[in-house]
Amino acid sequence: MTNNNYVRIFDTTLRDGEQSPGATMTSAEKLEVARSLAMMGVDIIEAGFPAASPDDLEAVRRIAVEVGNPAVPESEARVPIIAGLARANKSDIDKAWEAVQSAKHPRIHTFLATSPIHMKHKLKMDPEEVVQRVSEMVAYAKTFCDDVEFSPEDAGRSDPEFLYVVLGEAIKSGATTLNIPDTVGYTTPEEFYTLIDGIIKHTPGMRDGITISVHCHDDLGMATANTLAGIRAGARQAEVTMNGIGERAGNTSLEEVVMALKTRHPVFDLETGIQTKQISRVSKLVSNYTGIVVQPNKAIVGANAFAHEAGIHQDGMLKHQTTYEIMRPEDVGVNQTKLVLGKHSGRHALRTRLAELGHSLDEVELDKAFARFKELADRKKVIVDADLEAVIADEFYRPRDVYLLNDMQVTCGTMGMPTATVRLRGPDGVIHTQASVGTGPVDAVYKAVNAIVNVPCELLEFNVHAITEGIDALGEVTVRIQGANGHTSMDAQSEAHYPRVYGGHGADTDIIVASAKAYINAVNKLIIAQTESHERVVNDFGVMLG
Amino acid sequence: MTNNNYVRIFDTTLRDGEQSPGATMTSAEKLEVARSLAMMGVDIIEAGFPAASPDDLEAVRRIAVEVGNPAVPESEARVPIIAGLARANKSDIDKAWEAVQSAKHPRIHTFLATSPIHMKHKLKMDPEEVVQRVSEMVAYAKTFCDDVEFSPEDAGRSDPEFLYVVLGEAIKSGATTLNIPDTVGYTTPEEFYTLIDGIIKHTPGMRDGITISVHCHDDLGMATANTLAGIRAGARQAEVTMNGIGERAGNTSLEEVVMALKTRHPVFDLETGIQTKQISRVSKLVSNYTGIVVQPNKAIVGANAFAHEAGIHQDGMLKHQTTYEIMRPEDVGVNQTKLVLGKHSGRHALRTRLAELGHSLDEVELDKAFARFKELADRKKVIVDADLEAVIADEFYRPRDVYLLNDMQVTCGTMGMPTATVRLRGPDGVIHTQASVGTGPVDAVYKAVNAIVNVPCELLEFNVHAITEGIDALGEVTVRIQGANGHTSMDAQSEAHYPRVYGGHGADTDIIVASAKAYINAVNKLIIAQTESHERVVNDFGVMLG
Repeated sequence: MTNNNYVRIFDTTLRDGEQSPGATMTSAEKLEVARSLAMMGVDIIEAGFPAASPDDLEAVRRIAVEVGNPAVPESEARVPIIAGLARANKSDIDKAWEAVQSAKHPRIHTFLATSPIHMKHKLKMDPEEVVQRVSEMVAYAKTFCDDVEFSPEDAGRSDPEFLYVVLGEAIKSGATTLNIPDTVGYTTPEEFYTLIDGIIKHTPGMRDGITISVHCHDDLGMATANTLAGIRAGARQAEVTMNGIGERAGNTSLEEVVMALKTRHPVFDLETGIQTKQISRVSKLVSNYTGIVVQPNKAIVGANAFAHEAGIHQDGMLKHQTTYEIMRPEDVGVNQTKLVLGKHSGRHALRTRLAELGHSLDEVELDKAFARFKELADRKKVIVDADLEAVIADEFYRPRDVYLLNDMQVTCGTMGMPTATVRLRGPDGVIHTQASVGTGPVDAVYKAVNAIVNVPCELLEFNVHAITEGIDALGEVTVRIQGANGHTSMDAQSEAHYPRVYGGHGADTDIIVASAKAYINAVNKLIIAQTESHERVVNDFGVMLG
Repeated sequence: MTNNNYVRIFDTTLRDGEQSPGATMTSAEKLEVARSLAMMGVDIIEAGFPAASPDDLEAVRRIAVEVGNPAVPESEARVPIIAGLARANKSDIDKAWEAVQSAKHPRIHTFLATSPIHMKHKLKMDPEEVVQRVSEMVAYAKTFCDDVEFSPEDAGRSDPEFLYVVLGEAIKSGATTLNIPDTVGYTTPEEFYTLIDGIIKHTPGMRDGITISVHCHDDLGMATANTLAGIRAGARQAEVTMNGIGERAGNTSLEEVVMALKTRHPVFDLETGIQTKQISRVSKLVSNYTGIVVQPNKAIVGANAFAHEAGIHQDGMLKHQTTYEIMRPEDVGVNQTKLVLGKHSGRHALRTRLAELGHSLDEVELDKAFARFKELADRKKVIVDADLEAVIADEFYRPRDVYLLNDMQVTCGTMGMPTATVRLRGPDGVIHTQASVGTGPVDAVYKAVNAIVNVPCELLEFNVHAITEGIDALGEVTVRIQGANGHTSMDAQSEAHYPRVYGGHGADTDIIVASAKAYINAVNKLIIAQTESHERVVNDFGVMLG
């Protein structure tokens, strides 16, 4: 096995992270996240599970083309490996290869469960059949792609002796990365260390050039400790997600593993390729696009993670900074000149700052962004990065507007009868106006929207937060809705079909307007999914990004 | 040392948790949290840091009286130990004793830093002086109280040999619990295991009757794993908080440690006294009162922590439940009959359900609650526990209303000029009405409120979420404000003075009305703190709870 002091960071935000309920992102949002991950220095991007749906396949393909290749074709610039997940069957592997093959460094990641409970209840296969299938499917993947990763699912609850056999077969068939998942977040660091140590020592064929990887879940709050235990035992790839998002309690957090290795460098003596100063920015991007909030007391990326970000008296803090700080906030990009632009800033300043934030806009897009910026600057004295990110997300990373908000007015208060009048432009260009009364202003607006669009759906979640401090802050609303008629998406591992959940976000200094935008945004996604062909979405997507 | 298979749960939500920025709770809220913790089976409640302010002392005293004693005086019912924190000086210890002495089982918890960096920069003391001070102050505490706990602050970065000496002196002077904090969240599980193991083996005087405790922080995401490593090494008390709240990235989560010990019982072979079915309820209570949200992917208590809570297709899940579930949601009280009351439910049903939720109201309070309930039931078909909790919090756990919202009306939309008219009843009974225009409806309301109350303050944070699913959901708003004139609160450890942050919450089906209530709630807290005497607050507090 590869035994050096470099730990590869395999980010699965777009696969395991995106599969968490309600985290569904549009293809454009996924591409933007992939760009940011690449910019941050991630070694491998698991871009999705192409067999889940044609949309998923297409999203992975676009990432492989656009993020998996250097900007200048002959450049030697470091570009990430783009991986696609596949169950251990030919159809999944075909789709994964179709999706990733255009990347400069493609990878097929296939998996099969090896725990008694999974083999019996889910696979309904004998251990011998499992070994046989792994051998065949890794070999099949290898016919397309030199870089094949294999995962024995639920390894944390598998018999180690059986794992050695399965993994030995995977090596024999050509797998070069063996990923050991604690699928249900069940193990303790000691157990996981022992598991990884045993695999390295006892798997037949283990040698230099084989990378052991770890993939942990946080059900008992130990994902980071388990991942580091695996690394101590010799793993040199860590599968992680931004903000630790993922099914149930989520996956290991990228930021925790990377910063633990960095902060405790004398203990671990290991390096990663992550530009840690990008962590805060990417964390916010993922939180905005998925609508999954980061709690204030989240390690590294929570709003309170660094004491002096959270209102502690600066003088008292600076007097003995290291007494309570083991990391500097600037190391993860917190608190870098937040004040960026004001009312009198010009197009050039806006373009420069957006480029620094990783958004390269063409002239037409810049015009739009500048108009939004000026409009906002009229209402809000100071425009900070978070405002810009919100405007960009609101303006550019939306599906094509099926329905577009033209105008709305709302009256509410303690007198009862909150009333909203909403005017939308429909897909046919026709203007629709409806008034509704509701239990509150948001309810009234949503009822008026429903009366126009007439697509049955259920509101699952509604959140508003002020993006920036102060009373004139921009409010950002995220909603999640679920269509009444069963569009579903398949989970790679449980093979359960989730009802598709659509997220929407909207930003405005008026939170009721932001609420309307967010809801219309989500409803548009639902309508596109329900009524338009796959091709139409792809075209639209192409047009959107110019 | 005590070596049995019972791990004491020492909850410091009200001390280390409440010190996290913005988590400030009113005395009534603290008392309610303490009641819930006791009901859940916590062994020790650290109720606060009495030397921080007279308010803090009084809050601890009330908890000692009301939660630290059995309801029936001669009953043998299990009541928790009530602990008060004190720095290692006589004045702090006097105040801690004053606060906790009325409890059936009082404890004084004193601490002094032992790491080179803290001794040099913070204490400016020689190691010899530190040993001397510990010896004197533990002995001083012991003159009041038989149950004395000592913590060598920043033990994680202290010289183990020095720790043995300090801890040996603490034992000699009468400490019966030795708590080992990883104050800055710096250690790995292996290091922490070694530290605790060394302490148990090498501290002079270690014997049965001495309990070793662990207190970890989550800066690198390893608080839970470190705590369990300490327990494996022989610690039999774990210091934790609900939802892992606390300064920076927070403390170890109660729910993670308790559920890891339970779920992996065959590995640990240890018990706690926690009624795990109460975890979900207490988690929500703490989140509501502190305004610190729990992220969906938080282990155990996040909204997505249990797969089938989060929209996964029930049939698919039930087919092979244990394949992806290592805990049952009902074990932590998730998903217990959520549907509780409807429009036609009566007073008795409401009283019964509130009692089950831990709220015992007198007749007058029940009348108020019932009126609010009927009002809500008119607007919302189904009333679930979360709605009830919100109504109770909104109605009963507010400071006395200095200003009270009489009426308001708001007009907003895309036409510009969002306008609010607000009518408040002031402390003198006079009605004030003001109209304001703002950047959005919330801004307009807050400006109108400001024009009436005229107390300079800054809005730090604003959050809305729908408490329950569906378009007619009750919206809950939490805000945090900071007064412009420097009321501060002292942190026990860093001795830094934080500007006091006041949280407010409000619930209503109209989120703009909820926003107004939340803001007025926070402003009232600020006004009480700035203008009224300590005594007045206490009286008010006494009256409030009847």
